[in-house]
Amino acid sequence: MTHPLVRISLFVAACALPLLAAGADGAAPMIGFTPPSARAEAALESKFDAALDARDLRAWLEQMSAEPNHVGSPHDHANAEFMLQQFRAWGWDAQIETFDVLYPTPTHVSLDLVGPHAYHAQLVEPPVAGDRTSSRTKGALPPYNVYGADGDVTGELVYVNYGMPGDYKELARRNISVKGKIAIARYGAGWRGLKPKLAWEHGAIGCLIYSDPRDDGYGAAETYPAGPGRPAAGLQRGSVADMPVYSGDPLTPNVGATKDAKRLDRSQAASLLKIPVLPISYTDARPLLEALGGPVAPTPWRGGLPFTYHVGPGPARVHLVVKSDWQLRPVYDVVAKLEGSQYPDQWVVRGNHHDGWVFGAGDPLSGNVAMMAEMKALGALKASGWRPKRTLVYASWDGEEAGLLGSTEWVETHAAELAAKAVAYVNSDSTSHGILEAGGSHSLQRLVNEVAAGVRDPVDGASVLAHARAYAILESQRSDRHLARALLDGADLPLDPLGSGSDFTPFLQHAGVPSLNFGFGNEQPGGVYHSIYDSFDHYVKFEDPGQRYGVALAEVAGHTMLRLADAELLPLRAQDFAATLGRYVEEIAHYADNLRDETSDVHRMLDGHVYELAAIAADPVGPAAREVDVPFLNFAPLQNAVAALAATAREFDAAYAAATADPATLDPERSAKVNAALRSAEQALLGRDGLPGRPWYRHLIYAPGLYTGYGAKTLPGVREAIEERRWAEAAEYTTQTANAIDAYRRSLETALAALR
Amino acid sequence: MTHPLVRISLFVAACALPLLAAGADGAAPMIGFTPPSARAEAALESKFDAALDARDLRAWLEQMSAEPNHVGSPHDHANAEFMLQQFRAWGWDAQIETFDVLYPTPTHVSLDLVGPHAYHAQLVEPPVAGDRTSSRTKGALPPYNVYGADGDVTGELVYVNYGMPGDYKELARRNISVKGKIAIARYGAGWRGLKPKLAWEHGAIGCLIYSDPRDDGYGAAETYPAGPGRPAAGLQRGSVADMPVYSGDPLTPNVGATKDAKRLDRSQAASLLKIPVLPISYTDARPLLEALGGPVAPTPWRGGLPFTYHVGPGPARVHLVVKSDWQLRPVYDVVAKLEGSQYPDQWVVRGNHHDGWVFGAGDPLSGNVAMMAEMKALGALKASGWRPKRTLVYASWDGEEAGLLGSTEWVETHAAELAAKAVAYVNSDSTSHGILEAGGSHSLQRLVNEVAAGVRDPVDGASVLAHARAYAILESQRSDRHLARALLDGADLPLDPLGSGSDFTPFLQHAGVPSLNFGFGNEQPGGVYHSIYDSFDHYVKFEDPGQRYGVALAEVAGHTMLRLADAELLPLRAQDFAATLGRYVEEIAHYADNLRDETSDVHRMLDGHVYELAAIAADPVGPAAREVDVPFLNFAPLQNAVAALAATAREFDAAYAAATADPATLDPERSAKVNAALRSAEQALLGRDGLPGRPWYRHLIYAPGLYTGYGAKTLPGVREAIEERRWAEAAEYTTQTANAIDAYRRSLETALAALR
Repeated sequence: MTHPLVRISLFVAACALPLLAAGADGAAPMIGFTPPSARAEAALESKFDAALDARDLRAWLEQMSAEPNHVGSPHDHANAEFMLQQFRAWGWDAQIETFDVLYPTPTHVSLDLVGPHAYHAQLVEPPVAGDRTSSRTKGALPPYNVYGADGDVTGELVYVNYGMPGDYKELARRNISVKGKIAIARYGAGWRGLKPKLAWEHGAIGCLIYSDPRDDGYGAAETYPAGPGRPAAGLQRGSVADMPVYSGDPLTPNVGATKDAKRLDRSQAASLLKIPVLPISYTDARPLLEALGGPVAPTPWRGGLPFTYHVGPGPARVHLVVKSDWQLRPVYDVVAKLEGSQYPDQWVVRGNHHDGWVFGAGDPLSGNVAMMAEMKALGALKASGWRPKRTLVYASWDGEEAGLLGSTEWVETHAAELAAKAVAYVNSDSTSHGILEAGGSHSLQRLVNEVAAGVRDPVDGASVLAHARAYAILESQRSDRHLARALLDGADLPLDPLGSGSDFTPFLQHAGVPSLNFGFGNEQPGGVYHSIYDSFDHYVKFEDPGQRYGVALAEVAGHTMLRLADAELLPLRAQDFAATLGRYVEEIAHYADNLRDETSDVHRMLDGHVYELAAIAADPVGPAAREVDVPFLNFAPLQNAVAALAATAREFDAAYAAATADPATLDPERSAKVNAALRSAEQALLGRDGLPGRPWYRHLIYAPGLYTGYGAKTLPGVREAIEERRWAEAAEYTTQTANAIDAYRRSLETALAALR
Repeated sequence: MTHPLVRISLFVAACALPLLAAGADGAAPMIGFTPPSARAEAALESKFDAALDARDLRAWLEQMSAEPNHVGSPHDHANAEFMLQQFRAWGWDAQIETFDVLYPTPTHVSLDLVGPHAYHAQLVEPPVAGDRTSSRTKGALPPYNVYGADGDVTGELVYVNYGMPGDYKELARRNISVKGKIAIARYGAGWRGLKPKLAWEHGAIGCLIYSDPRDDGYGAAETYPAGPGRPAAGLQRGSVADMPVYSGDPLTPNVGATKDAKRLDRSQAASLLKIPVLPISYTDARPLLEALGGPVAPTPWRGGLPFTYHVGPGPARVHLVVKSDWQLRPVYDVVAKLEGSQYPDQWVVRGNHHDGWVFGAGDPLSGNVAMMAEMKALGALKASGWRPKRTLVYASWDGEEAGLLGSTEWVETHAAELAAKAVAYVNSDSTSHGILEAGGSHSLQRLVNEVAAGVRDPVDGASVLAHARAYAILESQRSDRHLARALLDGADLPLDPLGSGSDFTPFLQHAGVPSLNFGFGNEQPGGVYHSIYDSFDHYVKFEDPGQRYGVALAEVAGHTMLRLADAELLPLRAQDFAATLGRYVEEIAHYADNLRDETSDVHRMLDGHVYELAAIAADPVGPAAREVDVPFLNFAPLQNAVAALAATAREFDAAYAAATADPATLDPERSAKVNAALRSAEQALLGRDGLPGRPWYRHLIYAPGLYTGYGAKTLPGVREAIEERRWAEAAEYTTQTANAIDAYRRSLETALAALR
């Protein structure tokens, strides 16, 4: 079936519009390049594009997703070996780096409703018509959440909605506790791993996570195979390691999980969950939820199953058993280099993982094959005599799904080398069709805008930037009119800040390497995400028929890599970073003001018995909890640091623009000095002690939220301290973050001095 | 089963709090009364309260809801006769006034899915266990929407979500039209009658309206008989007359439907719908909706049925037949008077309707029996020698369900008398348990606050005002923090502006009589609304077990009537009205600014092809429509009129307070002059030509929205002109409305002069 892409061809009409001013032509501006080298670079990129072949992507995707390829599976290893041979054949200096990581696999899982009546959960995803691999699951692991604890528990069930912190506040207002009980949460609204963690923190002895049809099943899209949505028995595997504390092998935080690494005892590993947990389909969840009594669930908690949701606890009682084989297993990172001709000791790193939960066609192989296409094209350029100025390092990571294992262990192993050499890291993961999604370090925002302006949407030929800008305008039109208008006025597409959920985390947040993450997406729910139905057949039917967006991803990531590798001055624009920081500081100050007002209102309402008086029988809810009052906080250190940075950034960007405008002024020696200062600037943003309670996370500007998981928290030391009402910590991190920004500014001043 | 009312007894604790300062004691302020007469009034109200007996309410409710009591049914007539006898027995001067109204009843209704497969709709609500009348439906009408057209139509089906104007814009962006097709809309989001009207305006040949389980079925509450929610086969009858154009008999707008009234031909009656329409349950809707193809419905359109909603059109095709008997039928208004001792020609009017759709236990009999209890208690006071100062007029209306027939015809018949005599109208309709809901003319806001402060919640003994204020604080805390804080600071509970949906409409919006509407409510969905399950058994199980809130309603409405009847100065506070008007003007100005900005943004987005560029395959949506640009509008006439009114209101309220504080200064002659000016002040707010396109609606401050139905539009001439982008009309109604406010101010000046 052809995918129903219905875009009107707009390219000719749209080309003339201001929105598309940075058109997809070779004469577009190119940050970091002098005009003559920009022209050469554009020609090079055309050659690169010509060497990309959608048929390659399709063939690799089909082959690599043909069998289960989770960590430890034969096909995972085979895929690594296959890539190794290919990379070498394409002229890369490639090798496999192996790490030995704790990787539990289930030996027994079972789930039974034991009261008020019996139901034995199936825990199986059946084959579906037209999906060839769905009947070839031999060798696949039983559905489970890796790093959940072993356990054999029986208890009353409590429905906790998405299982996020606000949900437990709602439960508390209804006098309902999960203590000694088994929580059932639905997927969504926050990272999976937080659900059992929070359940455990609230005293639960076990946790179930199910896929509600409202969120990614029939309530969201027609279900597979008729549509992309999650079928009734589909379920979402996934890691429940406490990744917001540290990623990678739970036994080797901060060091590479090499053969001889010193390992923690399992009981000491902070990222391991303490209770058993199981992911289930709504086919299995329905009898459990339907057997719940207690109050009717609050309106926003109700999902798409055709009955009235109740919270419990009980009378539903469940018996949950999870037993695992807690072995060390190997992960195979395939790492390949193309040495730089001018700056061999400056590394531009690119990565995508290759391990999947089952067949992993979309996640991660769709991104991995795009990366392979880049490597083949770069190999062809090399064969024609070209060399990058800086060294290109391409890596296909293993073990991402369990907790960014391959990338984290590699970064930890090569930490000193990365600190000395890394210029940037460019990541991708699964990709689909639609709109370019770009996140990352904001000093690279201009680069990304320029690259995206030069890549055409495969359906209508307008630039992928024009599409992404249009999408951002539409999205922000109601939520942030200021942003929508700025975009209409021609402002650059803002990069999303990076949280976690893919392999950029160790690079950016542990090692301070400026990072980017790319992928094409759309509003479709991830209906087969982490299920056996994330298959080749599903992918080519619903995600990217013809691999056209796969090729576009290779263009976006490939051009980004080429510009990072070849630019005369490293392609950073400081004002974008400074302006973004300014917005983050404003946001936090506004958040604190709002929290102060809200807290004061709540306290007045508590004093006035408003909650009790307003309670109605249909939903008898108790008062909100009394919180600590919010004092006025001193944001001046941050505000001053950002203002100073903004001033330096203006000067720097002007000098930089002048220098790159005139090739005569830019001799290699000056460039080298400027680049040396710029290359390591982002490392100035690392705090020596890291973030509160999670020293592994060192970046003071970007982090995954402790209570959002994948979702980013910016200025995290300050923001989370305020959210959690720890005022001394907020003050401490205001200073630390301001100092880091000052240090970044000094790197910029060094670069500026060299420029002058 | 006892109702799970769980309020903590708060009265003792809460009494001391500022929130409850206007406590439930006799020494509370009483607007319009001098201190000695306030004390007498408080004593009188205590006697009144003592004469209310919950057992009466229960017995009347059971008897009156024992058989179907729609217009034209024997039991409807019997109920009128029963009340007539009771009212007379209680000492009232009572009579039945009969009007002859067009009242079609179905002779044949059927609905069939005729393609792609066959389904014959049941159109029947089966008996449920434990609900005695659900198996005694003999004599009930088949489910239908009264005033829908006769028709026999077959066509493709299109799902139009709630069938509101915005939904048709969404359909247009998907190139989907209902022209020549049959629309299926779900209940909710706007008044029922607008759904087939808008479908017809967009070219549909028929319309179905179904109850989605997400809105008032299992998605909202446990379903009947386990809970109050709508069961699978439950459906909502109701009128689809174009009530926002005029209420009452479609054939006799502006005049009473007396025997000899001049009647329009049916073809001329503007309030009659032009296409056939039928209300159905989701049992019957499901096979139809499931057979729809076409695009997946936009996310907010998806209801609670367990499949993916599609929009169509087709392949589902349906055959819809509605044939009716278009007779005139009698409506029986039971009207009773207790003549005033001092001002017999000043009428304080109270009403509630008595006709139901089937058994009508909740709607309307729960309110009607509370009103009867008031009448019995007032009769007992009369028997003890008391007389009201002003004449009390109590009416139990017939034919409300079909279109406020009984009340409208009575108001039209007695228009001149009402203009000369009416002081105020106090309405109720169905009532439940929970929070007092009060709407009406804002000059009566202070009165309502004082009355509500003196009535205790039957569960915990705090005042019903304290509960309503607490509820309003909680509701406004996120949506309107300014209001929440004002309430915490002690501001009066604001009255909701009145739209339509009950019998206050002809009084307030056609005749300019200051009006109030009272009822107790809660967050429970109206799961049995207009179905056969709105029964005595349902009511006493889920709505008001023990009739305690019924008695509280009798206290609220009864005290209001007594104060309106006995106050020395009519209990109006002008500043409340002026301040509310000020807010409405601000709201409209803000709305216009916002509409201007939004329109300008949309036009920039259209110029930039943003919609096309942002479209994604999963939901291929075309551009928004290009609208007329929004000019800057002149609100100065309104702003000046409101400012002048506010100034006069301050002076007037001060003089009024001074006069009532000192009985010595308030001789009867002065009082009479003040009251004469006050009594008719609200009539100054009527526009001679009424509202644009609907001259029957004359009030320039309050109206039901042309496109919201029951929902109120304030300053409707101006607001709706802006919403519909008719700028000349906006200017015209700005002037007219300002003039009306000026005229109101002059009445106040007259009263003020008399006070001085």
